[in-house]
Amino acid sequence: MERVLFKPLSQVAICGGTHGNELCGVYMLKELPRDRSGTFSLTTVLANPRAVDTCQRFTEKDLNRCFTDTLLSDLLTEDSPYEVRRAQELNALLGPKGSEATMDLVCDLHSTTSNMAICIITHLNDRVGQHLFKYMREKIRSAPVRLILLTSPLSEGYSLDCLGKHSCTIEVGPQPHGVLRADVYNQMREAVDRMLEWIESFNSGTVFEGGEVEGYSMVEKKDYPRDPETQELTAVIHPQLQDNDFCLLKPGDPVFMTFSGETIHYEGDELYPFFVNEGAYYEKNTAFVLGQKQSLLVPSISVEKEQ
Amino acid sequence: MERVLFKPLSQVAICGGTHGNELCGVYMLKELPRDRSGTFSLTTVLANPRAVDTCQRFTEKDLNRCFTDTLLSDLLTEDSPYEVRRAQELNALLGPKGSEATMDLVCDLHSTTSNMAICIITHLNDRVGQHLFKYMREKIRSAPVRLILLTSPLSEGYSLDCLGKHSCTIEVGPQPHGVLRADVYNQMREAVDRMLEWIESFNSGTVFEGGEVEGYSMVEKKDYPRDPETQELTAVIHPQLQDNDFCLLKPGDPVFMTFSGETIHYEGDELYPFFVNEGAYYEKNTAFVLGQKQSLLVPSISVEKEQ
Repeated sequence: MERVLFKPLSQVAICGGTHGNELCGVYMLKELPRDRSGTFSLTTVLANPRAVDTCQRFTEKDLNRCFTDTLLSDLLTEDSPYEVRRAQELNALLGPKGSEATMDLVCDLHSTTSNMAICIITHLNDRVGQHLFKYMREKIRSAPVRLILLTSPLSEGYSLDCLGKHSCTIEVGPQPHGVLRADVYNQMREAVDRMLEWIESFNSGTVFEGGEVEGYSMVEKKDYPRDPETQELTAVIHPQLQDNDFCLLKPGDPVFMTFSGETIHYEGDELYPFFVNEGAYYEKNTAFVLGQKQSLLVPSISVEKEQ
Repeated sequence: MERVLFKPLSQVAICGGTHGNELCGVYMLKELPRDRSGTFSLTTVLANPRAVDTCQRFTEKDLNRCFTDTLLSDLLTEDSPYEVRRAQELNALLGPKGSEATMDLVCDLHSTTSNMAICIITHLNDRVGQHLFKYMREKIRSAPVRLILLTSPLSEGYSLDCLGKHSCTIEVGPQPHGVLRADVYNQMREAVDRMLEWIESFNSGTVFEGGEVEGYSMVEKKDYPRDPETQELTAVIHPQLQDNDFCLLKPGDPVFMTFSGETIHYEGDELYPFFVNEGAYYEKNTAFVLGQKQSLLVPSISVEKEQ
């Protein structure tokens, strides 16, 4: 089988608190080793400290939508949202995005109110991110580990992890925002430990065998039924869909329940729902995301020896 | 058995959105009948509309701590928190607290991130509140129904339900704040329906037989282990305590897990924990509440015929 060589991952960043009320990442950062010997340097970053202080997702603008080329090169004024300024600071610290100087890997830590267990989010063309997933999937037995594939290239991304040459967002749940649950924290802890273990091993010359990997890529977003005038919800996620992220949704399956108790059935192609009833997505008009399952053939990879 | 007579419940208020991010109550209000015929008038009140608009618990001060005699008679200035002003408005609308003119019953709708199913919170001396619980306990089969007894008299209460001659707070969970779950919404729906049914029946002359009722009264609050300097958490609720509200806690049982994975064991009397890992209580230094179970002998009650 084909083997692809990558430069060592010498500079790694782990970020938490990008959304200030997703507490697993905020607390995980405190537990990560500050002084460590090994094959790479580890930078830990509390991404949105003001939002963490007030335990909100963000203060003025969702930070994890601010890493576009446009916003990163925006001229700052007194009226610029705090998060746009902070994104530019982070770009200076971990980037600049797309340059040679940027971090080799940026891992961003998130949690969700959806029942998604451990999800690794990376890009369709990011073989390192996919191998990180493959390793976690093989090693972690305490919870399902799934892969969400972003089809846009890193350069077109808007999220913090796009500052790295490779990216790995770790999303764990279900956990209410503003709450820490031991079971969900432990899921993140195990994912982070396995990631650090993999990087050390990869940098040390281990060949990671390729193979088939299964992931989900986003097809569309579904909004809640709303009153056309007030935009208020007229229904909620149906009990049969709630907590059933990644279970195939077929035409006719119940998806919403109106407040008077009527069932609304799914119309559309057979697809996999995820981010079902994520609290932060009400304002983004997303009741759940629908994705298709796809099989990727990932090549073997190993480190390219430095000269 | 003794039978106690009460005046009819002619004026009933149901309030939601007292905490603006507890969405079940906010949406329940929209579903309640506005024009109804029957033995009582029903007033529905969105208690903290500003907090609802921004989906926060409160804007400046927790509204549900503002109904003390002191704050209700506080001279308002430009600097008065919005919630103190709103409490005085609500007192004018539903009260005045402790007067003859006040509502016969105030029901306040809440939700919690704790696994508490349906909880009715009323006062130790409120026979009507206790009968409401007893009726729901007998009729509702879809979820456990429990009673929390406040030992302070209504006149010393600080919460919105204290504006009524009788009080009934309905607390449902687990549900993340800022999220609506159909299962939890349906719990609240059933509790409210049974309450309205009981009031109608009581006002119409039905004698409600007394009997033994089991409730929990608060003994103490336990905080999270914290760093003495920064006040940051050093541990979270242990997985064995998480979601086990109302299961007897014995000395030696695990209660917290530190971020490095060590277990902290319970020391103290055998008591019942509830509000375990409620998101809004982190800032109130409460990881869980401990209560004792107590048995109440509730007399039969019926309506006192009006002259």
